[in-house]
Amino acid sequence: MSSQPLAAALIHAPVVDRRGDRVTTAVTNLDLHDIARSARTYGLKRFYVITPVPEQRRLVETLLAHWTEGFGAGYNPKRQQAIELIRVFPVLDEALADWRELTNADPLPILTGASREDGIPFGSCRQKLQQQPGLIVFGTGWGLAPEFYEHGWDVLEPVHGVDGYNHLSVRAAAAIILDRLAGRLGH
Amino acid sequence: MSSQPLAAALIHAPVVDRRGDRVTTAVTNLDLHDIARSARTYGLKRFYVITPVPEQRRLVETLLAHWTEGFGAGYNPKRQQAIELIRVFPVLDEALADWRELTNADPLPILTGASREDGIPFGSCRQKLQQQPGLIVFGTGWGLAPEFYEHGWDVLEPVHGVDGYNHLSVRAAAAIILDRLAGRLGH
Repeated sequence: MSSQPLAAALIHAPVVDRRGDRVTTAVTNLDLHDIARSARTYGLKRFYVITPVPEQRRLVETLLAHWTEGFGAGYNPKRQQAIELIRVFPVLDEALADWRELTNADPLPILTGASREDGIPFGSCRQKLQQQPGLIVFGTGWGLAPEFYEHGWDVLEPVHGVDGYNHLSVRAAAAIILDRLAGRLGH
Repeated sequence: MSSQPLAAALIHAPVVDRRGDRVTTAVTNLDLHDIARSARTYGLKRFYVITPVPEQRRLVETLLAHWTEGFGAGYNPKRQQAIELIRVFPVLDEALADWRELTNADPLPILTGASREDGIPFGSCRQKLQQQPGLIVFGTGWGLAPEFYEHGWDVLEPVHGVDGYNHLSVRAAAAIILDRLAGRLGH
């Protein structure tokens, strides 16, 4: 477990599609449930859902209300513990500001991307996250738009399997990355 | 990477629901896509989908045909490489028989379960899988029905996060488990 607080963000825009064009993807319930549960499992304090579409943000707020105050809270308290980590913002900057305020520190954004060859190894990233609150940034669709990589922020190496195949779902990739960065060592 | 061939199975019956009652869950496209992609990433040779419901098996066959022969094969060859690992059977025994025939060896079934306290550690399991073809068995719903644990087969320890919270989706759990058992070491 990281000795510093950790958060994750799931970006729905700007991301790229299979042709590399900039798109906005739809928020899906399943991404939110899966990644929130993985986030809760690894002790993350926030799971930021980023979409510029107001209707989609309202949908997320409705989901949040259902599971944290409504029927779902009593029906499945374990799910509540995961969903209550979610905060929704139109842009990543606002999530960073929220995370900065919550941690009272300058957060370290870590970008992920399946096709990045310039990434830092998991071990180094894990060490950095011992020093500073982190925010792991995941893209939907075919990944984060190029502009995210122009901030000079750290990029994490991709999850490599056994050969060049590198097409995990964002739900699976997030689970593996959180396990490697924030899980107990030595299993 | 395991030096012996590895496969996974996703069980839709008999599994238990949140009250512990035996149920049959519905096959979902997303489970199949996610776990097939994770399986392909970690070099698995087969991903068995187990459901006793004939209509559901036909649905899986339709998905398979779409992605391996139909439109999907040309549209997304990477997805094809994952989906083509899928084989569908009514019961786990038939999957074990298929895997035995394919590997020409006696396969080692490994059961998973979030609430098992009798599981073997990931490290031991990884070593066992160097000696013998393995079949990792995942349950949908609230997990595998008790009868699976009466065979005397090995049970893998649960994925522990940072505290007692232990409610990953099967898609996330499968990704993490395959990464730990079949991923490269030393990241």
